[in-house]
Amino acid sequence: MYVLHPSLVVTMDKNMRILRDVYLGITNGVISEISKEKPKDAEEIVELPGRIIIPGLINAHTHVAMVILRGLKDDVDLMTWLNKYIFPAEACLNADDVYYGSLYGISEMLSSGITTFNEMYYFMEKIAQATIETGVRSVLSLGILDLVSEDRTPEKEIKKAHDFLGNLEKLWNIDKKLKERLFFAYGPHAPYTCSEELLRRVAELAKKKKVRVHIHLSETKSEVQQIKEKTGKTPIQYLESIGFLGENVMAAHVVWPTENDLQILSHYKVNVLHNPISNLKLASGIAPIDKMFSYNINVALGTDGAASNNRLDMFREMHLAALIHKGNNLDPKIVSAREVLKMATINGARALGLENQIGSIEINKFADLVVLNAKKVISAWPKHDIYSRIVYAMDRNAVERVMVDGKWVWVEGKPININIESLRERIQEIRDHIEHEIAT
Amino acid sequence: MYVLHPSLVVTMDKNMRILRDVYLGITNGVISEISKEKPKDAEEIVELPGRIIIPGLINAHTHVAMVILRGLKDDVDLMTWLNKYIFPAEACLNADDVYYGSLYGISEMLSSGITTFNEMYYFMEKIAQATIETGVRSVLSLGILDLVSEDRTPEKEIKKAHDFLGNLEKLWNIDKKLKERLFFAYGPHAPYTCSEELLRRVAELAKKKKVRVHIHLSETKSEVQQIKEKTGKTPIQYLESIGFLGENVMAAHVVWPTENDLQILSHYKVNVLHNPISNLKLASGIAPIDKMFSYNINVALGTDGAASNNRLDMFREMHLAALIHKGNNLDPKIVSAREVLKMATINGARALGLENQIGSIEINKFADLVVLNAKKVISAWPKHDIYSRIVYAMDRNAVERVMVDGKWVWVEGKPININIESLRERIQEIRDHIEHEIAT
Repeated sequence: MYVLHPSLVVTMDKNMRILRDVYLGITNGVISEISKEKPKDAEEIVELPGRIIIPGLINAHTHVAMVILRGLKDDVDLMTWLNKYIFPAEACLNADDVYYGSLYGISEMLSSGITTFNEMYYFMEKIAQATIETGVRSVLSLGILDLVSEDRTPEKEIKKAHDFLGNLEKLWNIDKKLKERLFFAYGPHAPYTCSEELLRRVAELAKKKKVRVHIHLSETKSEVQQIKEKTGKTPIQYLESIGFLGENVMAAHVVWPTENDLQILSHYKVNVLHNPISNLKLASGIAPIDKMFSYNINVALGTDGAASNNRLDMFREMHLAALIHKGNNLDPKIVSAREVLKMATINGARALGLENQIGSIEINKFADLVVLNAKKVISAWPKHDIYSRIVYAMDRNAVERVMVDGKWVWVEGKPININIESLRERIQEIRDHIEHEIAT
Repeated sequence: MYVLHPSLVVTMDKNMRILRDVYLGITNGVISEISKEKPKDAEEIVELPGRIIIPGLINAHTHVAMVILRGLKDDVDLMTWLNKYIFPAEACLNADDVYYGSLYGISEMLSSGITTFNEMYYFMEKIAQATIETGVRSVLSLGILDLVSEDRTPEKEIKKAHDFLGNLEKLWNIDKKLKERLFFAYGPHAPYTCSEELLRRVAELAKKKKVRVHIHLSETKSEVQQIKEKTGKTPIQYLESIGFLGENVMAAHVVWPTENDLQILSHYKVNVLHNPISNLKLASGIAPIDKMFSYNINVALGTDGAASNNRLDMFREMHLAALIHKGNNLDPKIVSAREVLKMATINGARALGLENQIGSIEINKFADLVVLNAKKVISAWPKHDIYSRIVYAMDRNAVERVMVDGKWVWVEGKPININIESLRERIQEIRDHIEHEIAT
């Protein structure tokens, strides 16, 4: 048994227990003991004096390879941003670019303690490969959409998703452990980019296969308007009407739900993936998270892609999530630091369908852990309420080590097995190439 | 001549020049040369390959010693926060506590590249002492207010301010250089805590002495309501009516101005000190910064005290300032990264009346400089627009060295002359004592 001995463990379990001076025993990548006494069968004890252990953070919505497009254009409106910059740039990206972008993006996520991410993009095999090599976990959904060109059909899009699933299955067969590190989800992009037929078929398939569905939903006012003009319903009412909604749905953004929409989301136990920085930066708006809480909707937290953030930093995301709703609703009591850390851990696990595996520090869950050293952050002193301290005062500089599946994957400012300097040069070359391409 | 040779200089001068591969010559603490050629009379050249130099950041509104009260209570409403926690705790602070708190707070500010801060608090001599010892600059206003107790009168409050000014003058006489590092301002706390007579007399004295006046203004809805009930006017109209407003006024917050208020602020060239994080955290609201820009009002950026932030981190403050107005106004084009860096540099200098001394990198200005190492921040790559990169992608971890008056005051993660470890223990002791006092 491998044993960690920190000063404080923030469990994020049902009782929100905070444990002082305990031993965390790990066996085969799983938390096997939490005790005040030194475990008898300890093979190695890592003393972590003054350190705080929290569960690995869960980035509930991202497009990790978009680090390549970071800051490609800022401070412009969404349609200019997409049509003039992002889409032309993405058209230039090849599989290798996505692979290197993913390695870099995952490294960036690890630097802020993210151990699992929920991804939607393309060249998904490459993102699976980067997940394996960096040692983290991901839920992978190939973005499918049939309304953007005449060539695309529901059949073809679903075939693409299943081809990717086939490739994942090959990986699972090679190494059974990978079945717990790479998860499949369907990724119909959004109600305005997918036909009703595609959405219906995905919903049926997902229910049959018992897998998650990852979708962008009610992100902007103009999306809501567009769907209303087309269907007479809000995007959420529309998805309800075609039998799309359920506990397995992970809905990113949800900035513009009506009161009735919230009732629907609550009724079907849809999971909301909140991305406050991206929503502010692209001026999509401010999602009504406090209302979602009152409807008992499960809200997880995500960074979105780095092109619209411009970071993959869960500490910044937590900070924003704790601040924005207070100021916007003129109520300092809502969306507390404690609630925000739940959004970044156990709520994320619940959203991804992994509540029994990750998201809290409990016996039999995977040892996905973040070791925080508060002494590395000048704002973390003097000591105060631990949730407030993590969310408002600390930052990713406090992240000293990160463990996934009982293995260290980030130690002292660096990812294990990745040469970040040469990777930085590689993504700079890719970026330079893309800028050259879209300029000519 | 002491010479720095970075890769990039972001001048923040009138032409917003970005200079590549130049030499910055410094003589007697002043920038004396900016050239492509190596200066002939260079005594020492510091090679800074790959580094970016920006002007020292200016924290336009803070209460630096409040780091001691950081996270004393979060996520409660303003009146509970003030009456049950902050005021009782402040009643326990002695001069030494404020001194140590200031040393720690200034160290924290230096870590994010702040070289000048605009302060309002009490035991101001101690904050002056901490300013001297840490090597930074400050504009110091003793908070004066006569409506909070029967003992206080306008005479007594003004005498306190002048006693402090007398003590500052003694320091200036000892060391002439200190006249350029410690500046005096009047600090009438707010329209709701100061009598009309006190406000009138401060305004007259400030005009006569040609000094700044630092005041909290239009921070909350309830302040506006209270002043309206008392005077029939908004706080800004009220201050106008008593002859208080002018170019020398530094108004913190200004969250709730009416259109007419904005016209008034613009007419009198009042400077606004924007504190987005504190305004969100205390749920005061979101100041209409974009409107202020359209009225040509000078807007500077501040952190407020750490009790309501909970950091003294200009990188977080810049990030928030660039994000919040876009999302709140559903317009991604407003309050650009470039505007935000102006708010944190040259606009701050203008607000403090120090436009000719600091806030940009120009010949004859003080050498208050921040050396950024982008390689220390994983989110800073790939390279992109420099303003966007600083505001959205970098953080205080990029701050490698800080110079004030031509002297290094922060090098490689540590303040010069301050033992941060023993100081951390000291402020923890003070905090423990205060928590004990207010609990009993």
